[in-house]
Amino acid sequence: MSDPDETYDEPLFQRVIEYATAADRDVVRMVSGHPDWEPPAALREGLETYAAGDPETFQYPPSEGLSELRREIAERRGVAESRIIVTNGAAEANYLGLAAALDGTSGSEVIVTDPVYPYYPGRTTMLGGEVTRVPVGDDGHIDVAATRAAASADTAAIIANTPNNPTGAVYSRESMAALADVAADADALLVADEVYDHFDFSGRFESALTLDRDNVVVTTSFSKSLGITGFRVGYAVFPEDLVDSALTRHTLVNVAISRPAQAAVLAALRETPPSYHESVRDTVRGRIDDFTAALDDIGAEYTEPEGAFYVLARFEGFPGSVENVQRLIDDAGVAAMPGAAFGEASEEWIRFTLCTDRVDEAADRLAAYFDDQ
Amino acid sequence: MSDPDETYDEPLFQRVIEYATAADRDVVRMVSGHPDWEPPAALREGLETYAAGDPETFQYPPSEGLSELRREIAERRGVAESRIIVTNGAAEANYLGLAAALDGTSGSEVIVTDPVYPYYPGRTTMLGGEVTRVPVGDDGHIDVAATRAAASADTAAIIANTPNNPTGAVYSRESMAALADVAADADALLVADEVYDHFDFSGRFESALTLDRDNVVVTTSFSKSLGITGFRVGYAVFPEDLVDSALTRHTLVNVAISRPAQAAVLAALRETPPSYHESVRDTVRGRIDDFTAALDDIGAEYTEPEGAFYVLARFEGFPGSVENVQRLIDDAGVAAMPGAAFGEASEEWIRFTLCTDRVDEAADRLAAYFDDQ
Repeated sequence: MSDPDETYDEPLFQRVIEYATAADRDVVRMVSGHPDWEPPAALREGLETYAAGDPETFQYPPSEGLSELRREIAERRGVAESRIIVTNGAAEANYLGLAAALDGTSGSEVIVTDPVYPYYPGRTTMLGGEVTRVPVGDDGHIDVAATRAAASADTAAIIANTPNNPTGAVYSRESMAALADVAADADALLVADEVYDHFDFSGRFESALTLDRDNVVVTTSFSKSLGITGFRVGYAVFPEDLVDSALTRHTLVNVAISRPAQAAVLAALRETPPSYHESVRDTVRGRIDDFTAALDDIGAEYTEPEGAFYVLARFEGFPGSVENVQRLIDDAGVAAMPGAAFGEASEEWIRFTLCTDRVDEAADRLAAYFDDQ
Repeated sequence: MSDPDETYDEPLFQRVIEYATAADRDVVRMVSGHPDWEPPAALREGLETYAAGDPETFQYPPSEGLSELRREIAERRGVAESRIIVTNGAAEANYLGLAAALDGTSGSEVIVTDPVYPYYPGRTTMLGGEVTRVPVGDDGHIDVAATRAAASADTAAIIANTPNNPTGAVYSRESMAALADVAADADALLVADEVYDHFDFSGRFESALTLDRDNVVVTTSFSKSLGITGFRVGYAVFPEDLVDSALTRHTLVNVAISRPAQAAVLAALRETPPSYHESVRDTVRGRIDDFTAALDDIGAEYTEPEGAFYVLARFEGFPGSVENVQRLIDDAGVAAMPGAAFGEASEEWIRFTLCTDRVDEAADRLAAYFDDQ
């Protein structure tokens, strides 16, 4: 963690949030990616039922996760239960995936996109690996050819997040298959972080599980799909021959994942109707439409979000620096993330998170602010 | 994890548990250290109240832990809140403590006792360190002089568990102070795992926090004290100058700890009367008395448990091998842990966990079994 270039952005997130909190005015919060909508009713009920259970149910669950939860996941995803490790959110799933790559291959390099969710480089460096950043295309999509050119015998993993934070791109199945090939040629793993899989507006998203490759680790969580970022329940689907060593690491670090949260997620999976997810998607879709229409009016450039719940926007002559983000907090009353937090390629951009019901208000404030410039 | 000598014992735990489950007879379970008693009422109520909360309370808690929980811990322990990181049980707390030592000092060696809780060597190896085992004295206590002799410039950490699993020893404050000195002389950390701090029957236990040293990390959890091994809430108290890097690692691995579990623990801390803990201690104390009296009758040797809830026993001509433990399951109907799982020094011994209300029955069965030998 000594190279500041490769540190993760939690302090920056926090710096922006703290600055917004300290501001002497009302601020619309569009910084952190945590849902503001109601979780499924079955989740609350599941937690209540759990709270009244036998003391035995309060003790260690299996390290790999509650067997009923893994069975439920296995059935939904069409994979063998034995390949699933329930993790402390997608965070730990990605940590285990990168560790499997850095421990299990001869390579020491992890290829990420630029811009990138900053925890990937942070984790890589912590695990003793080196980070290579490959700029995305103008459309925010991963550049497969450039990734192929960057990959070598020293590559341990390629990590790809789709639907993507922060660009909103949803990678095609062909792109993911090509990335798996690039990884295979380099004797590396492809780690596919699909945490926004329930937020696909392109109709294009297909899980990398459907590739059925033995060098692909798929990670995800229930944080976004059930609106519970604080519960910390996710999972990784490993190729069979990598499960044991990943489970050893998981067990040595965490022993197991919090059981009340696992029980609540199990209840939610079993009893939540598809209409819940459709309704949440409609809400986000509506916010995207409203916000991008306002950006059009302002004359700002933006990447059209095909998935996830972020909009990356560029305002002429107003780069995505911390200073400018602080100006927006003070003078417009809108808090967002500086693009610089995600990499060099997004230094001109600002990321707005759509986890607020005040998107219209934020758009009006931005319009008024940039109108005055 | 390539040296089988330094692997952790989860597979062995599981092998014994699976063998006991598959046995064609009733078996008293004395293998795993998870409480069989009722958690505090306030814990259940806290979880129920949480389940009905605002969606906002379902989102990311601070990485370092809920601030109210950290404040509550800080007040009880008499330490600055800033030194506390809430972790996924004592497991992650110990992982962070060992990582801080191996990352933050020039040493690469971790000194553990023999016998030892097997996750310590497992974690050390996973983190790239070397394990040195120092046999305990005949009384099951850590051998301070031998530890001093073993320590060198290459020592990164000494890890000491008190009250101890598996020996039941409660180390004196003087021993812990001496170990902190040994560690300081080697420019190393002392990691004090105090997860059984609520189970002191000696009246001797004092937390290593009272030493007030800048090279001591204290770890613990609520798993045993609140009877909730499955909730996964623990914490580490770091010296001020080590908090930031430990928090970075914690954040990169787990982001944060499950919030429903933190909320339930907070409610339990606030509202559980001391009588709850006294009553649990009385229960365990009674089981220790019953079981050790039975061992006296059988003529078995044992370490008198000064703390925790295990009895390490030795039966003449019946070493603590996996095979003998399986014999006890099949022929006596009692499942326990082979001493070999904890190290060479305890190969002759068998560890019985007192987390069952059938201790008397187990004692009768053992008496009948050894009477027949």
